[in-house]
Amino acid sequence: MYRQITELIKTAGEIVLSASDIQAEISEKNGDANFVTAYDVKVQECLIEGLSKILPQANFFAEESGSAVPDMNEYTFIIDPIDGTTNFIKGFDHSAISVALVKDCEVIFGVVYNPYKNKMYTALKGQGAFLNGRAVKMGNGSISEGIVSFGTTPYNRKTAHETLGLAELFLEKSMDIRRSGSAVLDLCDVACGCSNLFFELQLQPWDYAAASLIVREAGGTVTTMENTPVTLNKPCSVLAGTENAHREALELIK
Amino acid sequence: MYRQITELIKTAGEIVLSASDIQAEISEKNGDANFVTAYDVKVQECLIEGLSKILPQANFFAEESGSAVPDMNEYTFIIDPIDGTTNFIKGFDHSAISVALVKDCEVIFGVVYNPYKNKMYTALKGQGAFLNGRAVKMGNGSISEGIVSFGTTPYNRKTAHETLGLAELFLEKSMDIRRSGSAVLDLCDVACGCSNLFFELQLQPWDYAAASLIVREAGGTVTTMENTPVTLNKPCSVLAGTENAHREALELIK
Repeated sequence: MYRQITELIKTAGEIVLSASDIQAEISEKNGDANFVTAYDVKVQECLIEGLSKILPQANFFAEESGSAVPDMNEYTFIIDPIDGTTNFIKGFDHSAISVALVKDCEVIFGVVYNPYKNKMYTALKGQGAFLNGRAVKMGNGSISEGIVSFGTTPYNRKTAHETLGLAELFLEKSMDIRRSGSAVLDLCDVACGCSNLFFELQLQPWDYAAASLIVREAGGTVTTMENTPVTLNKPCSVLAGTENAHREALELIK
Repeated sequence: MYRQITELIKTAGEIVLSASDIQAEISEKNGDANFVTAYDVKVQECLIEGLSKILPQANFFAEESGSAVPDMNEYTFIIDPIDGTTNFIKGFDHSAISVALVKDCEVIFGVVYNPYKNKMYTALKGQGAFLNGRAVKMGNGSISEGIVSFGTTPYNRKTAHETLGLAELFLEKSMDIRRSGSAVLDLCDVACGCSNLFFELQLQPWDYAAASLIVREAGGTVTTMENTPVTLNKPCSVLAGTENAHREALELIK
């Protein structure tokens, strides 16, 4: 089943790539939100149709459907068809498809696919994390030994001052900071040891459901910024990193 | 001659790509500065050797040589063998090779190559800017209509507070902010319309020599943050964007 899911997601990735040429032309007209939404919806439809065949009894909780939160005791797919939508509109070629499978209110399987670099990140609960089938194991680097990436919660501008204050704090303590525009890929970069820490003040469950399992299975820690578990049924803040960097960050932001 | 230069840079890009596997293993040991420096030097040597054959009379001004500033009335190549060195160490796969050809103290040809995405950006003074041979023409979007990217001048931490203050200002006024870790690629993203503005408080000439011609030939504006010309013989701040966004930015940072 897991292999079928990753193959489906790879196919959906082709929809994202096929858009990138059209996009190059559109970007000169300063983008077109409808066009992009059409691609988000197209990817989501492709995923829901395919996943329904693979696991017919599963519920769906997806970015583009605006539906009620399903009962996550049952099999539930949490889907972000294109994480990094602004990157997608603007042609940054840095976006990802994210699919998490939940059962008994826990993520048991997570997949993130970056079609631009053909990087497939997967994690199966208790079985480790993988990048294109190769095991990924995080070190335990401190904040000072690595990069800190962050999100700006662009849909809630009231957080800007707090976000940039934290970014300044971490810029002083770390090697440098990054802001990529895709929380999903930022979390996978933590899992792969590119960065030692990621934070964002507010995210939706589909932004972190799959990738948080990938970070944990790679050996890292994921909580809210208040050190409580991240929630699968409603938005929360996210703090993810190596065990060391995560602990240091909780001390710093107190 | 220009075709020979881009072909040489593409070859040098293979050195960068060949390192990325070794790097994946090294990143678990928290990087190895010597290893990276070895690659920077290897790329630079490849470029200097090749460029010396293409244009024997040319001088060189390059990141890894620490040499004196040559007379830029004569043909001079300004080289950054790997821009985005921290990205390279940490495995972000977001770095670029930059080569500018100067004559009479002006950049007459600029090339930037992102080997990870096989994107070759070129500009010939008065002849336009190109991405993989296809003409690139910027729009004139305002700050509010686009992304603002910035650099953190990581080698001079005293600028952190000012940088993040500006980042907050632009986060409030724009669609969102980005911090990629490669000034050269940030400038090319401006040229290609992905972002409408880029700023950094201090950069070295090899960080912007080639890419600033690419932005200008694509229709954009590049100056220091004090609206003076960028300098080819010493570091300066950089403000680049669409004509509109650049003008708005100068007003905002006054």
